[in-house]
Amino acid sequence: MITDAQIERWLREDVGHHDVTNHVPGETTGELVAKEAGVVAGLEAAAAVFEYLGVTVTDRLETGTRVDEGDELLAVEGEARDVLRGERVAVNLAGHASGIATRTNRVVAEARTESDDVRIAATRKTTPGLRGLEKRAVVAGGGDTHRLDLSHMIMVKDNHIAEMGLEGAVEHFRERASFATKLDVEVETAADAPRAAEAGADIVLLDNMSPAETREALSLLTDYEGALAEASGGITLETVADYAAAGVDVISMGSLTHSAPALDLSFQTASD
Amino acid sequence: MITDAQIERWLREDVGHHDVTNHVPGETTGELVAKEAGVVAGLEAAAAVFEYLGVTVTDRLETGTRVDEGDELLAVEGEARDVLRGERVAVNLAGHASGIATRTNRVVAEARTESDDVRIAATRKTTPGLRGLEKRAVVAGGGDTHRLDLSHMIMVKDNHIAEMGLEGAVEHFRERASFATKLDVEVETAADAPRAAEAGADIVLLDNMSPAETREALSLLTDYEGALAEASGGITLETVADYAAAGVDVISMGSLTHSAPALDLSFQTASD
Amino acid sequence: MITDAQIERWLREDVGHHDVTNHVPGETTGELVAKEAGVVAGLEAAAAVFEYLGVTVTDRLETGTRVDEGDELLAVEGEARDVLRGERVAVNLAGHASGIATRTNRVVAEARTESDDVRIAATRKTTPGLRGLEKRAVVAGGGDTHRLDLSHMIMVKDNHIAEMGLEGAVEHFRERASFATKLDVEVETAADAPRAAEAGADIVLLDNMSPAETREALSLLTDYEGALAEASGGITLETVADYAAAGVDVISMGSLTHSAPALDLSFQTASD
Amino acid sequence: MITDAQIERWLREDVGHHDVTNHVPGETTGELVAKEAGVVAGLEAAAAVFEYLGVTVTDRLETGTRVDEGDELLAVEGEARDVLRGERVAVNLAGHASGIATRTNRVVAEARTESDDVRIAATRKTTPGLRGLEKRAVVAGGGDTHRLDLSHMIMVKDNHIAEMGLEGAVEHFRERASFATKLDVEVETAADAPRAAEAGADIVLLDNMSPAETREALSLLTDYEGALAEASGGITLETVADYAAAGVDVISMGSLTHSAPALDLSFQTASD
Amino acid sequence: MITDAQIERWLREDVGHHDVTNHVPGETTGELVAKEAGVVAGLEAAAAVFEYLGVTVTDRLETGTRVDEGDELLAVEGEARDVLRGERVAVNLAGHASGIATRTNRVVAEARTESDDVRIAATRKTTPGLRGLEKRAVVAGGGDTHRLDLSHMIMVKDNHIAEMGLEGAVEHFRERASFATKLDVEVETAADAPRAAEAGADIVLLDNMSPAETREALSLLTDYEGALAEASGGITLETVADYAAAGVDVISMGSLTHSAPALDLSFQTASD
Amino acid sequence: MITDAQIERWLREDVGHHDVTNHVPGETTGELVAKEAGVVAGLEAAAAVFEYLGVTVTDRLETGTRVDEGDELLAVEGEARDVLRGERVAVNLAGHASGIATRTNRVVAEARTESDDVRIAATRKTTPGLRGLEKRAVVAGGGDTHRLDLSHMIMVKDNHIAEMGLEGAVEHFRERASFATKLDVEVETAADAPRAAEAGADIVLLDNMSPAETREALSLLTDYEGALAEASGGITLETVADYAAAGVDVISMGSLTHSAPALDLSFQTASD
Repeated sequence: MITDAQIERWLREDVGHHDVTNHVPGETTGELVAKEAGVVAGLEAAAAVFEYLGVTVTDRLETGTRVDEGDELLAVEGEARDVLRGERVAVNLAGHASGIATRTNRVVAEARTESDDVRIAATRKTTPGLRGLEKRAVVAGGGDTHRLDLSHMIMVKDNHIAEMGLEGAVEHFRERASFATKLDVEVETAADAPRAAEAGADIVLLDNMSPAETREALSLLTDYEGALAEASGGITLETVADYAAAGVDVISMGSLTHSAPALDLSFQTASD
Repeated sequence: MITDAQIERWLREDVGHHDVTNHVPGETTGELVAKEAGVVAGLEAAAAVFEYLGVTVTDRLETGTRVDEGDELLAVEGEARDVLRGERVAVNLAGHASGIATRTNRVVAEARTESDDVRIAATRKTTPGLRGLEKRAVVAGGGDTHRLDLSHMIMVKDNHIAEMGLEGAVEHFRERASFATKLDVEVETAADAPRAAEAGADIVLLDNMSPAETREALSLLTDYEGALAEASGGITLETVADYAAAGVDVISMGSLTHSAPALDLSFQTASD
Repeated sequence: MITDAQIERWLREDVGHHDVTNHVPGETTGELVAKEAGVVAGLEAAAAVFEYLGVTVTDRLETGTRVDEGDELLAVEGEARDVLRGERVAVNLAGHASGIATRTNRVVAEARTESDDVRIAATRKTTPGLRGLEKRAVVAGGGDTHRLDLSHMIMVKDNHIAEMGLEGAVEHFRERASFATKLDVEVETAADAPRAAEAGADIVLLDNMSPAETREALSLLTDYEGALAEASGGITLETVADYAAAGVDVISMGSLTHSAPALDLSFQTASD
Repeated sequence: MITDAQIERWLREDVGHHDVTNHVPGETTGELVAKEAGVVAGLEAAAAVFEYLGVTVTDRLETGTRVDEGDELLAVEGEARDVLRGERVAVNLAGHASGIATRTNRVVAEARTESDDVRIAATRKTTPGLRGLEKRAVVAGGGDTHRLDLSHMIMVKDNHIAEMGLEGAVEHFRERASFATKLDVEVETAADAPRAAEAGADIVLLDNMSPAETREALSLLTDYEGALAEASGGITLETVADYAAAGVDVISMGSLTHSAPALDLSFQTASD
Repeated sequence: MITDAQIERWLREDVGHHDVTNHVPGETTGELVAKEAGVVAGLEAAAAVFEYLGVTVTDRLETGTRVDEGDELLAVEGEARDVLRGERVAVNLAGHASGIATRTNRVVAEARTESDDVRIAATRKTTPGLRGLEKRAVVAGGGDTHRLDLSHMIMVKDNHIAEMGLEGAVEHFRERASFATKLDVEVETAADAPRAAEAGADIVLLDNMSPAETREALSLLTDYEGALAEASGGITLETVADYAAAGVDVISMGSLTHSAPALDLSFQTASD
Repeated sequence: MITDAQIERWLREDVGHHDVTNHVPGETTGELVAKEAGVVAGLEAAAAVFEYLGVTVTDRLETGTRVDEGDELLAVEGEARDVLRGERVAVNLAGHASGIATRTNRVVAEARTESDDVRIAATRKTTPGLRGLEKRAVVAGGGDTHRLDLSHMIMVKDNHIAEMGLEGAVEHFRERASFATKLDVEVETAADAPRAAEAGADIVLLDNMSPAETREALSLLTDYEGALAEASGGITLETVADYAAAGVDVISMGSLTHSAPALDLSFQTASD
């Protein structure tokens, strides 16, 4: 959820102490319009900005809708000065989130050429302050949030394994994990994959492996039906289909959130 | 400046209510390392995150430094659990800001092929919550912040001109502007450019013009030495040199901040 | 994690605008002492309050330690006025959290009379503002956090089932759930338990059933090894062993957090 | 007063980054119902949570009302997802505050068996973040807030007296106290009680005395009509009547706020 | 107390998104110096600003000290950029608070010409956000805080009396007041003064009366020794001695906080 | 802009934990009335306080309006308890801002006796937390905001010049300044004034000069038409006309914001 406290911070950040340009009298309407094709997200956040300012949102596309150039995403009406004051923050939010949804959607489509059910997941590599917005944008684009924060799912990493050994580390965290929490265990060699599954991993993360290594690891996991296999590390739009073809259940990519260009959106008021 | 309140929000966002994975005993050291070449920014913010957690920053590159793959940007030492807890937020900040600095630097270099002094400027199309970090990253990359918020500089826009006429709008805001504040007047035709300068614009913004139109507008501004000329609207890495060659003083591009991919950074602790 | 912003709010709440009683000159030491036996928790939070005020924490018991009357939990030294200023908030936090840990511990001990491995879990019935502190106190007492927030685990509840049917609701959320997120499905009759497991529940919550009904439900779940069985609803210290004996994997009780009396703690300064 | 900022923190704490379970379409109604008898409090806070989410509160009992099992405390109507989103925080607040009101009410009733006008007062032993809610709940139950924060009333404590002597300490604080602020002076022996009154205490706090000692101290205070006598320290539901019978004006008990079990409340929506 | 959260807001307000002028290398020292005579206050707040920035406070006058032109109030040393960054906020706080202390001190001195013990008190007419700082500055100047907030003392005002009658209103609030809270009852005629005292007022506020009316009211209060008499409403530096001579116990004046000119202070760094 | 977060902080500061005096039943109306002549400001802030509490603002004067004693500035209607609860904060804000507007207006009028276009500007000597409110109040009184924060305009000060020399310092900051940002260069002798202008100052600040020195400096600036001349330092209502007569473009005075007495305002409810 987007809170009023966030919206206030964002507006203050953009307005400063004495803005004279938005003191336009009268009422107006405005529309958020796509200037290129994509998948929309972040419209709840954009709407919340306008509503905080007392502007009525008269129409809004569903998150996850695919749009073409010229499509209207959001329509508002209210005092001109309030519409103008909210415009920039609203566009910045929606453009950023829609960029992530659009990028995710394209990666999912590429993966679908090789697999009907592989999940394309984000990571914790999100923009500080916008974790929820970005994770929800990934979902809007057809992706999977992956873990939302450190408390959501336990990831057993190389530094844990270096200290306690693979089986030791899994046991250590199995004891400390709530029954409500899954364990995702990172392995760096195919040989370690079945060890992780045997030790009780809910997910085995095949880290920084080539597609060939990934296939090898998967071949060693066939006895562990309950455990999911995840590929991660340096996977790009160009290589995602290779990993999908290898048969993993999940492919996670930081670039979905940290490197997606904004979707080009424009806000037009009645007088424009 | 990055405040403790921001850092707290970012850490809470990432940690959640009950994280068990970072409870690693003992002390450790850590390094932030570039996995690709670029220009660094945001290291003060990353350092502030670690310092908030009681971790000592033992070394840090200057903002704006060009790095190659493998270079160390930041080094820390402290309690292992504190280092691990700050790592993700610190990397996310530095990667995001360095991505902006790197992208800006590349655009500046491109523009320099045609002009020694044209300024490459950002816009208000920044990520909500990170305005200052992103503007400073643009500067780190050799760019210009442009206006920091609505109160910093007055931009006379199409909706103002539609309502009051070009000269009327400039006069309206000249009266309301502090002596400390510049006026940037947006025009959409070459013919309007000298009208804006004549009316008292400090900067004439040539909006959405082709390089040819831009040249025409500039030819009409030769009598107004005090006014700067700015080009904006749909300018890309591919076309920026054409605008620089046309002779404008400033080229502003939203993509510097809203569409720069993160610089690929990695954080390595002693046990990795 | 406890943030400085929380500590500031708590101290301001307790201090008000003009407190003259704590302006005691000089340095002092202080000790947090148990006035009754129990299990301690919240000491990190208490320590953080003192450290925010510049007071040094010289000794601190591990969370989860069992103490007797007279045992010292925490020792501090610093300016007398800072020690006195932090005292009340620190005691309130530690007493509240230790009360929860102690109550949890007693319930766990009762359940252990019938089962070696049943988990005693909290719920979302926590004090607003203190979710993390209370969940960690439950763990300190030997309990399980259960889900930390709505996003951590999906609970399919009666209102979802009323709307979509049991299988429909499970399928609906399975599609919307991340691979990182478990599904806990609430059923109200023994007959529905195997339907939930068959539909793909990770956990089947047997809601408001008697121990006898619970046994019946468990007998229908024997074919679903992967699914955990959870009992919830009106279970008390008096009845918890009956549910443990029935063989469920998890027993969740709101009273662990919302009705545990504080552990009686006393803070003594050098001059006391 | 409950602020929007508090409500936002409480909702974020409960919701997390991506909750899918509350996205139920359509409108609904909901009722907060007592599952056991008691005295209600905190309904303004519960109502404020719903109103923050845009849900209409259609009915609400007065704070301090005595309810029986099955009675409706609060009724709401609005978008189903908003009702569901607010439910848990609202119930947690109302259950916690009503538990305190109910406990207070029971203690007051016990004291009334021996005294018509003794006041049963809370202390500063409140849950951090909820001072106001809990103090108002004590009033709802028929109790007295006692001092609201350190600035409200000056309490001269053992460490002050150890440093400055009883008369010295009272004089010290009398000089520093506003005319608007009362002085409550803690004494540990009956003999010190008249000294405190003579020195100018508005209230003499008889600390940790038995009922017999308390009677003795009161017998020495008969010449000081203006000063109130307060008993405090280890007083329980079982012993409160003895202190009331002794004739003190005020009995203060930390357990009213830190150890009251929650009142059992249930929230039922139309589809339940 | 001044919190870090306040300091952060104040610094952000003053710094904005990109300040280049304070990036001065090296260390420096700085001194806060009086440019006119007065009484100092707010130095704890000024010191807290510097300390937040990591600057060491090496010397500081006691709050309430009388200074002459040229006296040093506060000395600091640290990184030049941190000293410069904190300077303006620190001076603004100390100048504002010291202005209030100085004004209060002058009013007290004037009143002392006629009365040795009349208290000069502030009101709730304080600058939003600075209640505590200003109340403490009044004390630094020799004044009395009066009530700190609405919850500190109950003031029975004309609108209460209009609704419930004088005796009715006092009884109404006596029942609702904690034993820890005083009652201050506002009367507008001399004849009402003894009625308020009789009804149980701790303080009788003689509102908007001339010195002669005030004397008359006081003559009617001689039987009520326990009740204090307060004068308020339009009292100025010129008339305060007349009210003091009349014999009231307290004179309250909003102008102490809302209309005191700042004390002229200057901050000088080593390089100045 | 005034945010809800500010309003909440201000109301909590004034209300405390348990206020019983404002629980007046029924609806009421209220009016904010001038008790002396002046120029109004801060009414948007006062209105925002009432609106936050759900009170309707039925009438409001324009900021900058000149009023006489008895004029109504703002009218509201709503629940009596909400009107009463907001009253004090609203009056404090409006009285403070209107005091600044009134003082500014008087200084402007004085300066107008000698110059038709000199600007009377504020400084950064504002009350922490109220920068925007105070700067907008200066504008309401006919003044100029001057720079809003450190990032708005670059001021080259004595410590910069001491370190880098006048020309060096100007060049240093010209390189680091955005094209959107002006440079204001402080000089202490008439001879330095043309050096600053020659070096590229947008504004030359004649610091702490007498009117005669100021005239001399201006005589040396006649060749630099583009640069504005500003006088600052110790200028008072008594001397402002002398500086205006000297011919400077801007006169800046800290006393506009830090030493303006509040405008005397009264809030009257229907029952008063």
